[in-house]
Amino acid sequence: MSVELKYPVIALNFKVYLESIGENAVRLARIAEEVSREYGVSIIVAPPLPDLRAVVEHVSIPVFAQHVDPYRPGGHTGSIIVENIKAAGAVGSIVNHSEKRLLLADIGAVLERLREVGLISLLCTDTVETTKAGAALGPNMLAIEPPELIGTGIPVSKAKPEVVTGAVEAIKRINPSVRILCGAGISTGDDVAKAIELGTEGVLLASAYVKAKDPKKLLAEMADAALRSWERRG
Amino acid sequence: MSVELKYPVIALNFKVYLESIGENAVRLARIAEEVSREYGVSIIVAPPLPDLRAVVEHVSIPVFAQHVDPYRPGGHTGSIIVENIKAAGAVGSIVNHSEKRLLLADIGAVLERLREVGLISLLCTDTVETTKAGAALGPNMLAIEPPELIGTGIPVSKAKPEVVTGAVEAIKRINPSVRILCGAGISTGDDVAKAIELGTEGVLLASAYVKAKDPKKLLAEMADAALRSWERRG
Amino acid sequence: MSVELKYPVIALNFKVYLESIGENAVRLARIAEEVSREYGVSIIVAPPLPDLRAVVEHVSIPVFAQHVDPYRPGGHTGSIIVENIKAAGAVGSIVNHSEKRLLLADIGAVLERLREVGLISLLCTDTVETTKAGAALGPNMLAIEPPELIGTGIPVSKAKPEVVTGAVEAIKRINPSVRILCGAGISTGDDVAKAIELGTEGVLLASAYVKAKDPKKLLAEMADAALRSWERRG
Amino acid sequence: MSVELKYPVIALNFKVYLESIGENAVRLARIAEEVSREYGVSIIVAPPLPDLRAVVEHVSIPVFAQHVDPYRPGGHTGSIIVENIKAAGAVGSIVNHSEKRLLLADIGAVLERLREVGLISLLCTDTVETTKAGAALGPNMLAIEPPELIGTGIPVSKAKPEVVTGAVEAIKRINPSVRILCGAGISTGDDVAKAIELGTEGVLLASAYVKAKDPKKLLAEMADAALRSWERRG
Repeated sequence: MSVELKYPVIALNFKVYLESIGENAVRLARIAEEVSREYGVSIIVAPPLPDLRAVVEHVSIPVFAQHVDPYRPGGHTGSIIVENIKAAGAVGSIVNHSEKRLLLADIGAVLERLREVGLISLLCTDTVETTKAGAALGPNMLAIEPPELIGTGIPVSKAKPEVVTGAVEAIKRINPSVRILCGAGISTGDDVAKAIELGTEGVLLASAYVKAKDPKKLLAEMADAALRSWERRG
Repeated sequence: MSVELKYPVIALNFKVYLESIGENAVRLARIAEEVSREYGVSIIVAPPLPDLRAVVEHVSIPVFAQHVDPYRPGGHTGSIIVENIKAAGAVGSIVNHSEKRLLLADIGAVLERLREVGLISLLCTDTVETTKAGAALGPNMLAIEPPELIGTGIPVSKAKPEVVTGAVEAIKRINPSVRILCGAGISTGDDVAKAIELGTEGVLLASAYVKAKDPKKLLAEMADAALRSWERRG
Repeated sequence: MSVELKYPVIALNFKVYLESIGENAVRLARIAEEVSREYGVSIIVAPPLPDLRAVVEHVSIPVFAQHVDPYRPGGHTGSIIVENIKAAGAVGSIVNHSEKRLLLADIGAVLERLREVGLISLLCTDTVETTKAGAALGPNMLAIEPPELIGTGIPVSKAKPEVVTGAVEAIKRINPSVRILCGAGISTGDDVAKAIELGTEGVLLASAYVKAKDPKKLLAEMADAALRSWERRG
Repeated sequence: MSVELKYPVIALNFKVYLESIGENAVRLARIAEEVSREYGVSIIVAPPLPDLRAVVEHVSIPVFAQHVDPYRPGGHTGSIIVENIKAAGAVGSIVNHSEKRLLLADIGAVLERLREVGLISLLCTDTVETTKAGAALGPNMLAIEPPELIGTGIPVSKAKPEVVTGAVEAIKRINPSVRILCGAGISTGDDVAKAIELGTEGVLLASAYVKAKDPKKLLAEMADAALRSWERRG
């Protein structure tokens, strides 16, 4: 892997909000870069796919695709393959987000294709059961996100701590080389701190950042909380 | 689980061939029942979904659905849920066949729903990697079937023995309670014997049986080979 | 077509409720048959797919599948093809219900396959625009159902009369041989009468019938209202 | 519509070949621009989605997306919406290519969304039947492409002229404001001339251009043939 991520990590999924499209994608990525530099915390940004290249050109933090298809180069109109996102400068991709779920066979194929071209995988799963399956597939990172909490502002780290700890334990048992994040409802520094206390190595969030009145302030608060919680864990 | 399967097992997927629809489904199931009784080998039949109930009424061997959806009872026009197949008398279901692939999240949900109503799961996977994931999900049985060999008459047990043994080892390591079958291209008694030699506990086949000139003769040969190979393994 | 439907028609989609599965499918179909005979109104029933054959064996009103796949006989594990539902005794199928939406190309293929084996098509669409497209495809019947009203008890015929009349006009202009129904929220005899006043030739409903305290009374009321409204239209 | 297309038009779908990704997308688009200028023929290019913006920045011919999703801005990780492609500078999108088929309901929604933001739609269909449906939906352009000929080098305009003329007639009858193209197997100037003779207003092609030894020579030949055939038609 060409990029070495430090942990804890904060992964920002921009989705496709009006606040995160086009020039806004670059704006939000620049803020993330500033906070990353100021706090020394790894921050990943995943802009909309047509904005990948523009974001890569403007920031030097890791840029991920939000999704990538399992195909090899060829006649796949409208699909986006690993060669596409690599050419655009992405260093990894989210895989199987609950808003873009994949067939099990395609998850296997996408992870293999990402490895093949040296890109980092961040696999999303929805339950402790599918986290076990996901761990067995050996992604670089895995984010457990109960879909019913996504976008609610109710943080998984507080509402379903047993899902997070269950995922952490499943990973340890099945494939300890996988780095574990959690997501869904993460909205404050406190939510991030709690996530790390539960044994994760970071968080995945979207609307709380994209739609924040002051995204820089929020992200700084999260970066600070992540570092402190990480240190306490030792 | 209400049904105790003995191993080795031969699972017959009828798919939706003209030779396996309607009355032919009952005919093919009856032949399977005769062979099962004569040889004392467990034979599962999976007829087309609209023929489930008729087959259940005519034979006393285990009848599986070819597919079942992850939903709870409700407004799901055109879907088939575990309560449907249970009411029709099925004792289990194939899950994620390569001709009916499922989202990872839905596989998790289907396996849970089958457990909930006491039905047996036979999960299909396509590679050693997805077999690891499948094993972690804890189905009752798992059949590894490289899709490129399905329907070819080239048996996985001979053409890709390393895939079969890789799957057997993955299961042992991740979830030894899962019973492992293999499929794709299984066409003769010899293919079945070889599959069991490689460490599996049975086979999953379709067109070779459905389209056989003499299905009874073929199945008898397979049952005999399965038993002998099983005994040799000790 | 082997079955001649008289209009107006009441089509009952059983979906997969606990109240409509297995023996309940036969019970609900028998009630529909009684009402159809007493009032002389065409009533179609669409039971869960594994219950198709049992329902056909118990009633003599038209039985439809809730869904059918576009494939020809072959290796399509878990799919249900026109030969399957015909062998089970169905005389037609719902196509593209909003809970089982199809690709445009597959709708074309399914309608062709149904025609090929002499089965009746009841195509569902969601807007006036897709109704135009649906009319151009030439199904036997078309039901417009705004998905946001399905299961709400708010009848399309009252809440969105302009959608119903828009669909009626689109059909007349593009393909007047298509018979037009409407659905979504149809819950009373009055809703049925209003639907026919708006120019439709019947209704498609589900939960209001399946979950009715007294399904016979409700259906009788609907049959009576349908007839009276039909006569008034002349 | 902000862009006025002149007819005949040659639409180039770059798909996701190694020869059409990243810098190659810009290279192929520049060649198309040169030929367009030299011959005065409208040429549309549809590069891979992550290369949209870079292509827009380098050429002044119309740039289309290969696909766009039906959603409004919001939580749709990994999807690409009309606001995304408009922000990147695209003036239109291919819809429902046979390698990225859509649900009928989603085609309706995508066409509406494209209209809403002032982008041009190029809808693909596979048969005369689905062309009728497509025409009824009112896209700006429609390309009929029998999928079995795509990528074969066997031109639809010669192998299946009756499909092309059937589509032309269907459009005239159902919605004459839709501009009709054809595609699949178009590989030479002669194929283009024949397509226009059959009544189309242009062609859609992919691999023949993307993988041509001398793409400029091929495209110039096609542009010339298109113009001559168009003039002959008068």
